[in-house]
Amino acid sequence: MTASPPANQVSLADFQLLIRRMYHEKDVARGVEGTFMWLMEEVGELATALRNGSHEERLGEFADVLAWLTTIANVVGVDLSQAVLAKYGAGCPGCGRFVCTCPDAGKP
Amino acid sequence: MTASPPANQVSLADFQLLIRRMYHEKDVARGVEGTFMWLMEEVGELATALRNGSHEERLGEFADVLAWLTTIANVVGVDLSQAVLAKYGAGCPGCGRFVCTCPDAGKP
Repeated sequence: MTASPPANQVSLADFQLLIRRMYHEKDVARGVEGTFMWLMEEVGELATALRNGSHEERLGEFADVLAWLTTIANVVGVDLSQAVLAKYGAGCPGCGRFVCTCPDAGKP
Repeated sequence: MTASPPANQVSLADFQLLIRRMYHEKDVARGVEGTFMWLMEEVGELATALRNGSHEERLGEFADVLAWLTTIANVVGVDLSQAVLAKYGAGCPGCGRFVCTCPDAGKP
């Protein structure tokens, strides 16, 4: 994790704040369950793009899944940066290594 | 999007690189379809955590969904920073505003 990424990089915290400013009022009104259904719709569109889509279409669908996941995090008060640092910041949650050495049969 | 986030922030690019270094060999061997199924399993665990989980459990599930989404992006060569900047960097894709003014009946 670099301390000074280039200006064109996007931090998880900045993206989460962007989505909050853009949509939070609507997100809270919709609630977790309604928002989760939108996430699922976007996950389906991602599946379609992975099967048949162009690179550009895939870019759009990854962004949308990330945005709806972030929206749910905003609604329930989860900080995505804190979440990934806690789970992956000290290495693979399975083996503790930064290059995973878990058995191939395991999840990672 | 700030140019110099604090060192404890995580950039999307850094997280994508972390996941690549940690898991890429296994990810490529598994392929998109097998990886997508792991994403779905984690999405299900997120749903469970949203219904019944503690804040700590939710943190873990958000991190896992983000990690498996990132893994698929790595396998298909999608840059998540580029994806979100292209889709959301100029405002809401629907109305073009940084605080969304799309009709409430619309998706956002």
